[in-house]
Amino acid sequence: MKQDIKVSVDAVVFGYDPDHGMQLLLIKRRDEPFQKMWALPGGLVLDGESLDDAVNRELKEEAGIRVNYLEQLYTFGKPTRDPRNHAISVSYFALVRPKDFQISAQSDAEDVAWFDIQKLPKLAFDHKEIINVAIKRLRGKITYEPVGFELLDKAFPFSDLENLYQALLGREIDRRNFKKKIAKLSILEALNETIQRKSGRPAQLFKFNRKKYFELKEKGYNFDFFA
Amino acid sequence: MKQDIKVSVDAVVFGYDPDHGMQLLLIKRRDEPFQKMWALPGGLVLDGESLDDAVNRELKEEAGIRVNYLEQLYTFGKPTRDPRNHAISVSYFALVRPKDFQISAQSDAEDVAWFDIQKLPKLAFDHKEIINVAIKRLRGKITYEPVGFELLDKAFPFSDLENLYQALLGREIDRRNFKKKIAKLSILEALNETIQRKSGRPAQLFKFNRKKYFELKEKGYNFDFFA
Repeated sequence: MKQDIKVSVDAVVFGYDPDHGMQLLLIKRRDEPFQKMWALPGGLVLDGESLDDAVNRELKEEAGIRVNYLEQLYTFGKPTRDPRNHAISVSYFALVRPKDFQISAQSDAEDVAWFDIQKLPKLAFDHKEIINVAIKRLRGKITYEPVGFELLDKAFPFSDLENLYQALLGREIDRRNFKKKIAKLSILEALNETIQRKSGRPAQLFKFNRKKYFELKEKGYNFDFFA
Repeated sequence: MKQDIKVSVDAVVFGYDPDHGMQLLLIKRRDEPFQKMWALPGGLVLDGESLDDAVNRELKEEAGIRVNYLEQLYTFGKPTRDPRNHAISVSYFALVRPKDFQISAQSDAEDVAWFDIQKLPKLAFDHKEIINVAIKRLRGKITYEPVGFELLDKAFPFSDLENLYQALLGREIDRRNFKKKIAKLSILEALNETIQRKSGRPAQLFKFNRKKYFELKEKGYNFDFFA
């Protein structure tokens, strides 16, 4: 059967920075359609290339970055989503620490930048919808598996973890309750070090217990701080 | 850019029957490749057709069934998964009551049948892998949202719900603990009716509280009977 549908991949790369909150990596399109507009990094899959390889290649080609872990999000297939032709997008998402990367525009991207997820520019294609699905997935995710390992520094004050969850949820959390629940999971180890932030007393530093963290991530948990 | 990749959809349709456990809908292929082998219902997306429309059309064309709810599972893209050409599969899964459907082989399917998920035949393409991912997703799902509404009769004895969860998990559960946790969710309503099954005393019938059930499905819960 003759079929004329293009296959592309797109990546929603979230970054967390304690000073700037949840960030999203976008590239500025050099070419039509949607020339000069901001968009998710991504592009067409090559013949004989796996989807995972395609998204990693596009991230490298367009933004100059390499991420350790990409998770498939959803495949968007509305036939009119690309004005040129029927093209589906297999979308992925990743969580990174922005300061681990030196981003730089490459190939068909005119620019690349981190944006605050609360202040996104107008986006090309259906990328706004893809981002909304990714944010929803991320918010759902923290209720059944831990996040943070990929986003926080190796050693961090407890307030960074609280702020991360608040940034992910987009709202305030009950700090006392949160502290109790995190303690119960035993994924944190207290270090014999403190950090002095702008104001207040020096804060104790913690690190994730890598083994415990990934065990919990694998089997899932039930983080009922919504209850 | 020239690209020669086909886009197909496949459906993992699970059925639950209190007498026969978890079932899976398969079709027997009429044509090459994998001629006469069992496979998931599915096929190529038509130009201008959405992915959801494609999977619904294929289910109707190949198995003669129409399901109310399909959820996208994952997109499989290993370039060698189809011996003919590079073809990706956007896979979906659905939960149904087998007895609600009169299945019948249509178009390019030579036969269609329900199989016990514990006794599947050898399968075409990478469909075994797709099914494994679907089973894993389903098992994960029951830990954060209720299932059963689509799978059980309108009125059912509590043991049907227990057996369903056991069939989904593929193992025994602690019945007393299970009963307590389900009660706490308030998703069941006791009816003033009983049912007489093969042996034992007549059992009280229950129905799902539709409103409560879908509220919980939407917001998610934390069903820690794994804990």
